[in-house]
Amino acid sequence: MRADPFAEAALTRNAFLGGRVQLWQPLEGYRAGIDPVLLAATVPARAGQSVLELGCGAAPALCCLGVRVAGLVLTGLEIQPAYAALARRNLAENALTGTVIEGDIADPPAVLKAQRFDHVIANPPYFEAASRSAAPDAGRETALAGPVPLAAWVALAAKRLAPRGTATFIQRAERLPELISAMQAGLGSLELWPLAPREGRAPRLILARGRKGGRAAFRLHAPLLLHAGAAHLEDGEDYTDVIRAVLREGDALNFPP
Amino acid sequence: MRADPFAEAALTRNAFLGGRVQLWQPLEGYRAGIDPVLLAATVPARAGQSVLELGCGAAPALCCLGVRVAGLVLTGLEIQPAYAALARRNLAENALTGTVIEGDIADPPAVLKAQRFDHVIANPPYFEAASRSAAPDAGRETALAGPVPLAAWVALAAKRLAPRGTATFIQRAERLPELISAMQAGLGSLELWPLAPREGRAPRLILARGRKGGRAAFRLHAPLLLHAGAAHLEDGEDYTDVIRAVLREGDALNFPP
Repeated sequence: MRADPFAEAALTRNAFLGGRVQLWQPLEGYRAGIDPVLLAATVPARAGQSVLELGCGAAPALCCLGVRVAGLVLTGLEIQPAYAALARRNLAENALTGTVIEGDIADPPAVLKAQRFDHVIANPPYFEAASRSAAPDAGRETALAGPVPLAAWVALAAKRLAPRGTATFIQRAERLPELISAMQAGLGSLELWPLAPREGRAPRLILARGRKGGRAAFRLHAPLLLHAGAAHLEDGEDYTDVIRAVLREGDALNFPP
Repeated sequence: MRADPFAEAALTRNAFLGGRVQLWQPLEGYRAGIDPVLLAATVPARAGQSVLELGCGAAPALCCLGVRVAGLVLTGLEIQPAYAALARRNLAENALTGTVIEGDIADPPAVLKAQRFDHVIANPPYFEAASRSAAPDAGRETALAGPVPLAAWVALAAKRLAPRGTATFIQRAERLPELISAMQAGLGSLELWPLAPREGRAPRLILARGRKGGRAAFRLHAPLLLHAGAAHLEDGEDYTDVIRAVLREGDALNFPP
């Protein structure tokens, strides 16, 4: 029998935003990379506004956002009870208040359906469940290739937004057609911000934003570069200044004007 | 009464591809910029293959393509008889053989529906007819904001392709959501290649390719830069070397591998 990946001894505590955020994560399960940190940095939220994260996991994005912008009303929806519990613990240990609701994006709980939010964010699974071999850890597998279609994530985000509210997603560039079709159905003022590993390289990730009821023309921004220089450095980081400021100083990452 | 923009005295003869192509165009009507030249340079056609251009106008793209790749079977569809006549003249004066069919993309003639092509290209109008004030020249207006929806251009291209054939479009980046949704309906192996005016600037145009029956994953390429340097030079051109080779030497512009 496999050991419980959420047992105290199986958790590690990791620093984000240069130590401003401390996050418990299962050593064997899904572990946050830079993607939720970048996503959280883009949210144009102001004190007093409400933010919902769909599929919040252990809440890396909610914690980073809550630490950067004080006074937000934070809510997470998470299908896996062990991750939801970890998210509550992480919010509390970072001195944040927030509500983590257990539930399924494909069949959202009534308590969620009764609310509207100023901002919705999500880092949906990057892979389709049917198209890959499952990871051995079930929790990690759900985070990487959950069974709920991308369109359902986007549709729920659009439904739960207040008028003029923003929905922001981070997703693999490969799924851009699916993502953009889904966003067109319920959101306006779409913007895509590709994330490229370095200058001249194809973008691998996309930040995508839409606005409820927005009517502005679609915008495709120049790619945001993650790394400086032409090749990976063996020793140390080579993040661009913009990305380093987001990851280590907790700066905002504002969509281009 | 307005003078006939297609009268001999109202035409100018312009050099493309460093003089390899000479093109008659109406001084007052729609005049080709670099867009059809870039589009033609991307077509991966080999001698003996057939190429259809939808909305060929005076045939700048067909002429550039035919001069670059010898031995192609060239066909253009054009709704405006005066442009169709000019296209025939331009093909002949560039020593190319080709067929220009007069007809409407929304209701294609039977002679076109009886054929399949190895490649289809199109530079559809960049604006929606409903969304702008009309240009004073009716022919130019049809080229800039024809009444046929973008989706109809893409659907006809997909229908007229032979199995494994490619369809390549050039379009304003602002219409990417509409373009990509239309392409998903009838084409596979989609690729987007944004064209940015310069380093770090938002792409304004998109080259988009799909393959009939293609099953490869979607790909978003790094932007192709049109101009070198950070700002426009007052004197002379500042095209990047790649673009200059396409525009002045008649080089191919191959999609990234």
